[in-house]
Order: sequence, then structure tokens, then C-alpha cells
Amino acid sequence: MIKTIEWTGGSVRLLDQTKLPKALEYLNISTPSRMARAIAEMEVRGAPLIGVAAAYGMALSGQQNGGDFAAIERDAEILRAARPTAVNLSWAVDAQLKTAQKSAKNGQKAVIAALIENALLIHKEDGAINSAIGEHLLTLLKPGMGVLTHCNAGALATTAYGTATAPFYLAKERGIPLKIFADETRPRLQGASLTAFELCEAGMDVTLLCDNMAAVLMRSGQIGAVITGCDRVAKNGDAANKIGTFSVSVLAKHFGIPLYIAAPGPTIDFSCPTGAEIPIEERSGDEVRFICGVQAAPKGVKVFNPSFDVTPAENITAIVTERGIAYPPFAKSLAALYEKEKP
Amino acid sequence: MIKTIEWTGGSVRLLDQTKLPKALEYLNISTPSRMARAIAEMEVRGAPLIGVAAAYGMALSGQQNGGDFAAIERDAEILRAARPTAVNLSWAVDAQLKTAQKSAKNGQKAVIAALIENALLIHKEDGAINSAIGEHLLTLLKPGMGVLTHCNAGALATTAYGTATAPFYLAKERGIPLKIFADETRPRLQGASLTAFELCEAGMDVTLLCDNMAAVLMRSGQIGAVITGCDRVAKNGDAANKIGTFSVSVLAKHFGIPLYIAAPGPTIDFSCPTGAEIPIEERSGDEVRFICGVQAAPKGVKVFNPSFDVTPAENITAIVTERGIAYPPFAKSLAALYEKEKP
Repeated sequence: MIKTIEWTGGSVRLLDQTKLPKALEYLNISTPSRMARAIAEMEVRGAPLIGVAAAYGMALSGQQNGGDFAAIERDAEILRAARPTAVNLSWAVDAQLKTAQKSAKNGQKAVIAALIENALLIHKEDGAINSAIGEHLLTLLKPGMGVLTHCNAGALATTAYGTATAPFYLAKERGIPLKIFADETRPRLQGASLTAFELCEAGMDVTLLCDNMAAVLMRSGQIGAVITGCDRVAKNGDAANKIGTFSVSVLAKHFGIPLYIAAPGPTIDFSCPTGAEIPIEERSGDEVRFICGVQAAPKGVKVFNPSFDVTPAENITAIVTERGIAYPPFAKSLAALYEKEKP
Repeated sequence: MIKTIEWTGGSVRLLDQTKLPKALEYLNISTPSRMARAIAEMEVRGAPLIGVAAAYGMALSGQQNGGDFAAIERDAEILRAARPTAVNLSWAVDAQLKTAQKSAKNGQKAVIAALIENALLIHKEDGAINSAIGEHLLTLLKPGMGVLTHCNAGALATTAYGTATAPFYLAKERGIPLKIFADETRPRLQGASLTAFELCEAGMDVTLLCDNMAAVLMRSGQIGAVITGCDRVAKNGDAANKIGTFSVSVLAKHFGIPLYIAAPGPTIDFSCPTGAEIPIEERSGDEVRFICGVQAAPKGVKVFNPSFDVTPAENITAIVTERGIAYPPFAKSLAALYEKEKP
């Protein structure tokens, strides 16, 4: 399996995902501002991986600033602003800020050490979350089933098996046949360049399609389940994920195909009542006008380019977390899995 | 308005649509086999325009073969095989074969003259069909309405106003404001490179989006109607059109948005009982793996790439022809518009 991120002691070795699927190139990131840029420019992407990257970004800030808390706080804001939608990012930044604050009484060296230690812990926990989500999702699939996924919530979005893709890796290991279909996921084509890439690398049976072909596949009876990741789940189960997920959810509902959202704990935002409160990032129109650097549309044309959309809870069959499978009503089932720990 | 095709006396001046939206380049086509290649490689595309191009292709065959009927029949097969789904192609080829047969008794020169004359007539009729469809569709729209279209059934797909786009051109001429949204239409991006291009050129208010964003737009209330063209309509109203149209139809139905199919008479195939009998062309997986010539996915990945899909009659609000607006049940309403002429 491809390694996406690694702490090399003093800096971070980060897979440059903008180079995929043509090259496996790694960046050496040694400052928090460079990490913020890697997040903003999507050299690193995928909500869980962004969380781990941000945690290391905070560790780099501790090093660079000699453990000075005010400077670390400023870097926290820079990292937090890099991508507004993913809750893992601010979750990891906040966790690291608390770590820095707690260890401050033991001196600035202790702050640096604590930030590094906690980043490594967040990294390790992500791997454990991947495995647990995979085990739960696998119970929802049948041997030989066709499964559609959208965007990349795969190994390349995390530090291990991925979230939505975790059952595929587990099935592969255990010799359970699955037929995976990957939406290419315009405009940034993460399904083509990342999901299809990593599943091919792992030797799986994967078929790539354009986003607008999913309805035909579903009608043909080849899809038994849809599994996607998510960037943020509201308290009521509304889920923000890559643009196009909402469209897939409407189609799946129309055809009576279950839709499962793979959601690691940090992705669930209990402070956000519904999807209406999730900010949706709009990105440059040139992402649509130009494809792989080539002009595909008139330069002056207006473009609608929301980067995410919100799938309403009513279109979601189950939200699958590392702690188990939540069924509707999600306000109740998600709270049962996590809320008891909330302050 | 951009001129797509012109008989220059002895050859055909044809806009090379693979060069759009970057350049307006014209091909000079002087043989039927070169015309077949232009159709197969989509240098010329759009069902009505393919019909006119094929009619001229038959005229070129008449010239090249000195009016010899057996040779013309062989070219007819070559032209007919260039794209299997579009009914206009075989309709135009058949019409020209009948023309050749009828005039054969007057000698081979008469055959050549008749083929040219009939091609010019088919060309002229296409323009009249565009205008009539536009007038009928315009009665279904309201000033200020947002209208979504998919693929290109525009001026670039025909010889005049287009079919699905005809009401947009008429509205523009008459100062009626409309807000047009164009799906980019993967994999060949006809919405981006053709529809957005021609509507921008005409100074219209057009916004480009990726196919997977239409659901969000519809939910936001910005879309009052969907209008698409079609490649073939079955007797019962099932309509084959560019891949992705079926997906749009399911979404439109979900949101209670009317879907209108612009269908010139030659597109309606009364010999085809339902959509199940329409052959669907599958194209090379490299259309998806490579975008604008750039590799976007692993080279070896399997690809699902149907070029068309069938929208069932139940998802269609009305089929708008040059003779008027057909509402369900289409078997009855379409027959009332055309069937009386059938043998």
C-alpha cells in the first residue's frame, strides 16, 4: 500500500498527490506555512489525511518557533484557513493547540515534544479508524457485489486503508470478490487519478466511469451499494462530501440502492446541527474551464464550481464509523456512539 | 451565427468541431469516405448536422462514381456505419438512395444532379425545423427562467439555431432574458467546448458546470426547465441522447422540474417500438482515461463508456418537434403529429 505521509524527525515526507497518476513524488515539508500551502493546493488531500498533515504542521510550528505559544497560535490560524470545509483540519489544529497549552507549564521544549508526540498519535489513530470502518462496512457487502464509490476516500486520503475503500482492501486480503466502480469525479478527477490508481495498484477489479454514467450502471442492476467518504457530518446526519455525492445519493435512492457514508469520528461535527450550517467552498472556475491544463471551454464563460455538496440524511442508508454502524435517525444513533463523551 | 456546413459546388466546407473552442477551422471534404471519417471521428457531430453531412456525402458519392448506382449503394453502407446510434444518418442515407434510384431512369448525370439537389433541400429543411422547434419551446419558458441543457444540440449540431438551443437564440433576438446553464458533458465535453462556446459567442448569459453539479443547482431552485436534444426517439417516447441525459432526467423528475426533448421529425423512429431497441454505441475507454490528450487515470484501468443513454418516456414532460409539442402518452401524440404520413 502506498504511504501518503511520514514523520521523518524534523520534517514531513508527503506524497504529492497532484502528480498522480503519473508519478509517485514526495515533498519534504519543514515549515507550517509550507504545510498550509500543501493543504490549500491539494498536494495533500482527503479529510483524514489533511487532519494528520495539519497535526504535523502544528508540530513543525512548535519546532520553528521554539515552542512559543503565541507564534504557534498564529500558525494554527494559517493552517485552519487552508481549506474551510474539512472539519478534520480544525479538529487536529484545535487538538494540537490544547496539547501545546497543556504542556506549556513544562517549558518550551516540552511543548515541542508534546506536539510531535500527539501528531504521531493522531497519525496512528487514523490507521486504527480505517481498519475498524472497513470491518463494519464489510458486513454490509456481499461477495461478488458491485460497489460504486465517488471521489477518493481511499488509502490516498488517509494514512492506511482509507475509509470508503477500507472494505475493498479487507475483501481483497480475504479473497472476497467485489466489483468496484469509481466515478471519475469532476472537476479534479480524484476518482480517476487517485481511486482508480490506488485500487489498480492493489490489484482490484475496478472500472472507471464518468460521473454522468452512474445512473445507467445503477439501472442495469450492476450496483449493489454505494460507499463514499465525507468531509463533515452534521449532528442530524446530513453529510458534506465532494461535489457530485448529492447527485449520486438522489440516483441511489431512486433505484433503491443503499448509500453508506464512511465517517471517522473526527468527521462528525456535533456542534453543527444540520447540513445547512456547513460552509461550502467555491473554487476557481478555471478548474472547470481547463482540464489537466488544457483549455476545454471559452475562457470568459461563467462557471458554477462548488467543491462540495451536502447529502441530506434522508438519502443516507447508514453512516459507518470506527465505532459501529449508525442508522436513521442519525441524531440519536450518532449521539449514542459518540455523544456521551461530549462535554 | 457560426456556419457549420456549406456546399461549395463539388465539395463540402465543414467546420472541424474537434478544434473548438480554440479555433474555427474548416475542412474541405470531397469524397464520401472522407465524409464518413469526419462523422466517425466527430469532426462533424450532432444528429441533425450528421444527417445533412451524410446527404452531402451521398452527393459526393454520386459525383465520384459518375452516378453509378451500385457504387453509390456501397458508399451508402460506409456512411451508414460511421455512427450506429443517430437515426438521422441512416434517414438521410436512405432518402438519398431513394432519390438516386428514382432518377436513375434519366441517366447517370440526372442521378448526380438529383443527389445534390436533394442534399441542398435536406439542408434547407433543417434550418426551418430549427426555427419551428424554437418557437414551440419558447412558449414553454418564462422570462428570467434558468434553463439547463446537456451536451450540444445547438447551432453547432445543426445548420441554423440548433434544436435544444433554438429558443435561446430566439429569446436573445427578442430581448427575453434567460439564464442558461450548460453541463460540460463528459467524456467529450461538448457542453464546455461547443454549447458554452456558441452561446458565449452569441452574447448569451451562460454558466458552465460539471455534470455532477446539476443536482445542487436544481435543489437551489435556479433551474425552471431542462431542454436537451436527442439522437433517436422511439415510438413510445423513450429518447436516446448523449450519455448523462438519463441521469439529468432522474434528477429533474426528483425535483419536479420539467424536461423537454427537442426532437426534429427525422429523429423520431416510428419503426422502433421502445428505447430497449435502440443500439447504444460504446466508445474507447481512452476517451475517459485521457482528457484533452492528457492522461488522467491509470492506463490499464477498465472503463465503462457508453456514448448514449435512453431516457424513458416517463421522465419526459414533452417532446417538442417542428410540428408542435407532444405530451404523454407519446405513442399517441407523436403518431398524431407524424404517423398519418407513414405508409
